[in-house]
Amino acid sequence: MSSTKTITIRQGTREARHSFEGVHTVLELLQRSGFTVAAPCGGSGTCGKCLVRVIRGDAGEPSTMERRLLSEGRLAGGTRFACSLTPEANMEVEVPDWHGKTENKAALIASPLDNDPALVKRVMQLAPPSITDQRPDLERILAAGKVETSSLPLPALQELAATVRQEEYSVTLLLDRKKGRDEEWPASRLLAVEPGDTTDRFWGVAIDIGTTTVAAYLVDLNRAHTVDVYSELNRQAEFGADVVTRISYAQKNGVKPVQATIIGQINGMIAVLTERNKLSPAEVYLALVAGNTTMQHFFAGLDPAGIGVSPFIPVTTGALSFPAEDLGIRINRHGLAGMLPGISGYVGADVVAAIVASRMRERSEISLLIDIGTNGEIVLGNKEWLLACSTAAGPAFEGAQIRFGVGGIEGAVNTFGLNGNPTGTTIGSAAATGICGSGMLDIAAMLLKTGVIEATGRLLPAEELPDSVPSPVRERCATFEGSPAFMVVPAEETRDGEAIYLTEQDVRELQLAKAAIAAGVSTLLEDAQVPIEAVTSVYLAGGFGSYMNAESALAVGLLPAGAAGRIEVLGNAAGIGTVMSITSRTVAQECTRIAEHVRYIELSSSPAFQLAYIEQMTFGEV
Amino acid sequence: MSSTKTITIRQGTREARHSFEGVHTVLELLQRSGFTVAAPCGGSGTCGKCLVRVIRGDAGEPSTMERRLLSEGRLAGGTRFACSLTPEANMEVEVPDWHGKTENKAALIASPLDNDPALVKRVMQLAPPSITDQRPDLERILAAGKVETSSLPLPALQELAATVRQEEYSVTLLLDRKKGRDEEWPASRLLAVEPGDTTDRFWGVAIDIGTTTVAAYLVDLNRAHTVDVYSELNRQAEFGADVVTRISYAQKNGVKPVQATIIGQINGMIAVLTERNKLSPAEVYLALVAGNTTMQHFFAGLDPAGIGVSPFIPVTTGALSFPAEDLGIRINRHGLAGMLPGISGYVGADVVAAIVASRMRERSEISLLIDIGTNGEIVLGNKEWLLACSTAAGPAFEGAQIRFGVGGIEGAVNTFGLNGNPTGTTIGSAAATGICGSGMLDIAAMLLKTGVIEATGRLLPAEELPDSVPSPVRERCATFEGSPAFMVVPAEETRDGEAIYLTEQDVRELQLAKAAIAAGVSTLLEDAQVPIEAVTSVYLAGGFGSYMNAESALAVGLLPAGAAGRIEVLGNAAGIGTVMSITSRTVAQECTRIAEHVRYIELSSSPAFQLAYIEQMTFGEV
Repeated sequence: MSSTKTITIRQGTREARHSFEGVHTVLELLQRSGFTVAAPCGGSGTCGKCLVRVIRGDAGEPSTMERRLLSEGRLAGGTRFACSLTPEANMEVEVPDWHGKTENKAALIASPLDNDPALVKRVMQLAPPSITDQRPDLERILAAGKVETSSLPLPALQELAATVRQEEYSVTLLLDRKKGRDEEWPASRLLAVEPGDTTDRFWGVAIDIGTTTVAAYLVDLNRAHTVDVYSELNRQAEFGADVVTRISYAQKNGVKPVQATIIGQINGMIAVLTERNKLSPAEVYLALVAGNTTMQHFFAGLDPAGIGVSPFIPVTTGALSFPAEDLGIRINRHGLAGMLPGISGYVGADVVAAIVASRMRERSEISLLIDIGTNGEIVLGNKEWLLACSTAAGPAFEGAQIRFGVGGIEGAVNTFGLNGNPTGTTIGSAAATGICGSGMLDIAAMLLKTGVIEATGRLLPAEELPDSVPSPVRERCATFEGSPAFMVVPAEETRDGEAIYLTEQDVRELQLAKAAIAAGVSTLLEDAQVPIEAVTSVYLAGGFGSYMNAESALAVGLLPAGAAGRIEVLGNAAGIGTVMSITSRTVAQECTRIAEHVRYIELSSSPAFQLAYIEQMTFGEV
Repeated sequence: MSSTKTITIRQGTREARHSFEGVHTVLELLQRSGFTVAAPCGGSGTCGKCLVRVIRGDAGEPSTMERRLLSEGRLAGGTRFACSLTPEANMEVEVPDWHGKTENKAALIASPLDNDPALVKRVMQLAPPSITDQRPDLERILAAGKVETSSLPLPALQELAATVRQEEYSVTLLLDRKKGRDEEWPASRLLAVEPGDTTDRFWGVAIDIGTTTVAAYLVDLNRAHTVDVYSELNRQAEFGADVVTRISYAQKNGVKPVQATIIGQINGMIAVLTERNKLSPAEVYLALVAGNTTMQHFFAGLDPAGIGVSPFIPVTTGALSFPAEDLGIRINRHGLAGMLPGISGYVGADVVAAIVASRMRERSEISLLIDIGTNGEIVLGNKEWLLACSTAAGPAFEGAQIRFGVGGIEGAVNTFGLNGNPTGTTIGSAAATGICGSGMLDIAAMLLKTGVIEATGRLLPAEELPDSVPSPVRERCATFEGSPAFMVVPAEETRDGEAIYLTEQDVRELQLAKAAIAAGVSTLLEDAQVPIEAVTSVYLAGGFGSYMNAESALAVGLLPAGAAGRIEVLGNAAGIGTVMSITSRTVAQECTRIAEHVRYIELSSSPAFQLAYIEQMTFGEV
């Protein structure tokens, strides 16, 4: 490390020197060195998100895009795009502490859970062997346990002789009852044998891998109870903001680095959860994952290339289960890593888990479930039938492609309204750093109501504003980089001392995203020949869906006007459904039935959707 | 390697320099460096088998045991026990090329085999996906194949997207139909998917792991035909001649080194078989093993400690199957390594395979199966019932504990008789190097017949020989190391120029071994209340069983006199049964039924056996 070809990187309290041999940009170096950086455009120098600040060394002349997207003050202060910055000897750069604090996507689940998990522990006192009872160790256990399984995984078998003798033939069995239904344990799969009684050490982790956020729930498998939850921004953001960019990255560089990123992140999150609950990761026996189909492919190291192009074919959407060690998940060495089943390339296990959480398949009334994340997944139906589709909302709701857009991080403007003056709140009540999805929706709804935005999506220049626009709003209507814009936060109230705007282009992005969701909803309703009035419950799920203001969503036409009064926020439905699947094998089996049962409608080839999309381009209540 | 703390080791054409840092004896160094040396006593300096010759350097003063067991000529020539020899800088030692050539234990199997293997390949043309048929790759295969399996092993799944697209959705499936019975493939387990039609590349290897010899059969899985066979002495001999010594070694040093030795040897044998048949190991999809229970434990890395002490408890005797990669077996990376089921700690899968090969369970007539190796395993029964026992014959029949005893290697005296003169044959017609089991039996039978050995086992001194002893025999009656002995090969006909004797002590060893087998047979007959005359066939199996002269066995009383005329040599029955199990899933299932069906009789706690053992100590026809 004494070579001069190294640079120093700081992120939060972390500082490290890294060699930049064979690396062309600071972004590449950050990715190689395990730093988390947002790079929604995949490093092409266009999105302006992978910001770093050069503390020592020559930041060089800014590029055209850097000049366009960064103020002179920031450029002078050394801020640059990591993807456009060439590392040089002894340079020092600072990376924003990106995943330090996230909006608490994942709340603890308070509602009572079924306590009938597939994975169980059973204590057993074996009869010691003798010259008249020479049954082998394994056969002794199988006979005593009435376990219909023929074997044990090899590593457990290699330890078995010592295990059974350690506590004088008192053992605890780890059993997977997935396929059984009885009180006893026939058709169980024996996964491990532990010496003595280890039943008090028995935990699971449910993990919702969102494209933007990863949430992990620590579940007490004895009491069917979530005791803690922890979420982080998905570190795969460094490979792109959306699944398609990440798939492209994997096609160029292989699936392994992307898989390693999510596995490493999950291991870190499990370490956080276990440490702060005074447990060891060895006391965790199951890591059950639900994510969209691409996230699940990355988790298991499956090649997602087929999902990236029409006709959007995954390797599998089946429920999978592997020894956790095979995936590099650091829990008990005999533990399992499982994945819930999905429906199609763009309607994944997270949606199946959300359906479970909504309990919409338990009722004869028709429900509509909308999970708005980077993609919008929509499910319509009841206990008889279910229809689903996925619509490319784009990452606008997650803050990408929005001039001052950010994810749900500290300082993000997350609500906005007109209380005399236009005013909003930020996450953590911190100085504003940007606008997240729910804030943007509120701002747009307010601007629509006050007439600053027309139904066509045009953001009016100050000189064209109708007289009806209240003057506190009118005063914020300005221009930014030569186009009409609305000043969301004045310079003096922001962290960087520069005003935050919603631009005309931002409104266009919102319009496309809104149209995609709304058209998806109307296509499903039309296919099922169900009027919106016949839908009893509209469930909102997902990172953005849970935090958006339903009135704003109705105001801009993201949700159909007819749904007013029947909107219910589920929170992180995917996470909840995954926890439910961990604590109940009936629910886990139900996931497989749902995955097989849902009829998937491919919107990319649907003429009805194309028509609806154009129709829904108009803002306002539809 | 320029350090002076190295010695040079030669074995056959192989020569290598090795550091002896931290090593106390040349035997340890040989074991560490992967040289094969016999060390039946486990390196305690008592058996005199781990011979090396010091070519350069100081061989040092011979030990007491070396003086006792090695002639002055050999000592002067530099021959020493490797276990008693201290390595010194620049020493050069020569190790006998021990496993160069072995008696061909394993003959090709000519009899027609069932062609209905559990492991099959099936070619399939999949419908390419489209926007109206978006089934995932795996589900597309499962649906088309009517395969009742939910998944693929992870490594195969990770390659699946590329595999199905490589040959335009034409694929070959690798299926394990173990549990199915139909013509089609329900209840099959899908192990791998290969691009295009790969059905012509489909081989299996059946491996009989004997304590002394390992035999591997190359099987054409398409045509159910063995095309080649290859055998080597088991390299675990370096850890001891018998299973108990090897178990002790594993208890001190862990199972891993012993496992690594057999896995490495099997990989080498598969490499020999594939190379000389112009195949790649990647074209082999199954390595199916049958060995005694200890050998199978070592193969799978299971702890055999429980087998070594009363009540002789194995980890498992069940049929096991693992991805070959998990055991380090180098065949196709999606291939399987399997083990046939066994019966008890001392009646293993090799006996189950031998029962299959004898077809004794297909008939209502009663058969007796005797597999004489290091242990003697005996099975009595018919299609209704089967009894089995194991008797500690000791390794005398394998050449251990016999003064001039050797395994079935080149130069071993393997037959002997009195044709006017006492005369014998050697394996490979080479200059004599020692006496193997079948030779020893012939010699003993001849000496009994001529009255040189009394029924009590006493080898008469020359001066006590009765007049009836023919003079060519009498002339060979001499003394060796002060005790009566019979000169088997005069000095001028041996490789080392020193005469080979059968000593009085050797006759005692033979007597113990013979008594153990004969008492086992009589205990089973008594338990089943079956007179020997009711036994229709007596099958001889195993390394020694197959090569011994039945008349000699009857003459010394190793086999009951009543069996005369109904003795049939099966050859390597364990190997044959393993090949039969590879080519027929019915036979494989039959192995499991046999393992469950056989009633095992523990002789160590049987008073009947103790009585019979003393009775059978007498030589001669019983």
